Amino acid sequence: CILFDCDGVLWTGATQVHNAAEALRVLRARGKRVLFVTNNASKSRAGYVSKFKSLGLEVAAEEIVSASYAAAAYLAQTGRFRAGDPQGKVALVLANSGVEQELDAAGVAWIGGEAWHPPLLLTPADMCSLPLDSRIGAVVVGWDPAFSYSRLVYAATCLRELPGCLFIATNGDHADNIGRPTVAPAPGAPLPGAASTSSRQGSGALEPQPSSSARAPGSTQPSQGAAAASPVMRMMP
Amino acid sequence: CILFDCDGVLWTGATQVHNAAEALRVLRARGKRVLFVTNNASKSRAGYVSKFKSLGLEVAAEEIVSASYAAAAYLAQTGRFRAGDPQGKVALVLANSGVEQELDAAGVAWIGGEAWHPPLLLTPADMCSLPLDSRIGAVVVGWDPAFSYSRLVYAATCLRELPGCLFIATNGDHADNIGRPTVAPAPGAPLPGAASTSSRQGSGALEPQPSSSARAPGSTQPSQGAAAASPVMRMMP
Repeated sequence: CILFDCDGVLWTGATQVHNAAEALRVLRARGKRVLFVTNNASKSRAGYVSKFKSLGLEVAAEEIVSASYAAAAYLAQTGRFRAGDPQGKVALVLANSGVEQELDAAGVAWIGGEAWHPPLLLTPADMCSLPLDSRIGAVVVGWDPAFSYSRLVYAATCLRELPGCLFIATNGDHADNIGRPTVAPAPGAPLPGAASTSSRQGSGALEPQPSSSARAPGSTQPSQGAAAASPVMRMMP
Repeated sequence: CILFDCDGVLWTGATQVHNAAEALRVLRARGKRVLFVTNNASKSRAGYVSKFKSLGLEVAAEEIVSASYAAAAYLAQTGRFRAGDPQGKVALVLANSGVEQELDAAGVAWIGGEAWHPPLLLTPADMCSLPLDSRIGAVVVGWDPAFSYSRLVYAATCLRELPGCLFIATNGDHADNIGRPTVAPAPGAPLPGAASTSSRQGSGALEPQPSSSARAPGSTQPSQGAAAASPVMRMMP
């Protein structure tokens, strides 16, 4: 079985890397199994299937492991976030539709997401009367083009105040090179804010895991983050 | 001369710390000079005069050194940001009115500020055609309740692409305790995002300065940040 990274390996932006399609065909013709692993959480596996096809690359959804899928699979296997369960928890999503679609596909209950816009300018009075939803059992941070001060206030407060609230980071990249001159902040850019504001440390859904004794800078408590990568990889067919 | 911190020393929120007014009166009656130093940049010195008076504390604007004032004084003394100078530079402000007022008082040209709202959801196409204003010669990050993904895109891109662009951080606090349960992200919360996204490191306007060889994590270049504290302190009357 051969694992491929995607960005910069199979494509750069909207361009197929030279002979990538041919390489996959040859490997499959020789009976090799191929899997595609990416810490990019901006798309669901369904979104990646479309991306592969648009570039003339063959793929099945089951061959893709994205950070969005890993986050959703981890939350699903906890058994605590079942959509429709009135006693269940919900995940607060600070990410885009790629994560939303994977959570839906995994039957995970969530709130927030790309369309959630808490008021942009919170006054201190607003902040002191913040309505915290006690159903929130996890904060999921991914690529978040809707990221704002008020989203950070809500997320950091949930992480600090709600007992047992998980902190799932899809990945720790700080910037995406989408073409100079622009720098596109990636999930890791707002993460330090959420982590340092709440004194909590996120666990990467598809990143090397810190040791169990890892602590957030300045934190007096061990990280409560969940080690998501290993269980997800064990779930692979 | 006696230097006082403010938050938690003279007041806590809207409450005067026990006998603070009396202590100031006694010191002044004995001929001591008092100065008030705060790394809180959310108010201008004029704003602090009102705050002192609302709590029954005597003060003159000249006795206050705030991080907002320090940032403005530093930019003013570079001589490159004179308001009305058609050849001059402007500062891009990611902060609130406290910083805006001090820049105005110092005759520093600026754009951005609390009322600046670039589109909340930037598409990659938007980001790749970002209109960069080449007059921008500094990015000033302070307490920024209007902080958003798109503000971070603009700031990080200016810092990476505009030659000699200064990176001024009013302070590095990560969170303000405005009363549980809420956590209020402070200037230091978005800072790691701006710093890591642009591979640049901000200089605190009223913070201990890193050594000149300090580097941003992952950066291959020395910090281009300006050491603001010392010049400002030398300017004190």
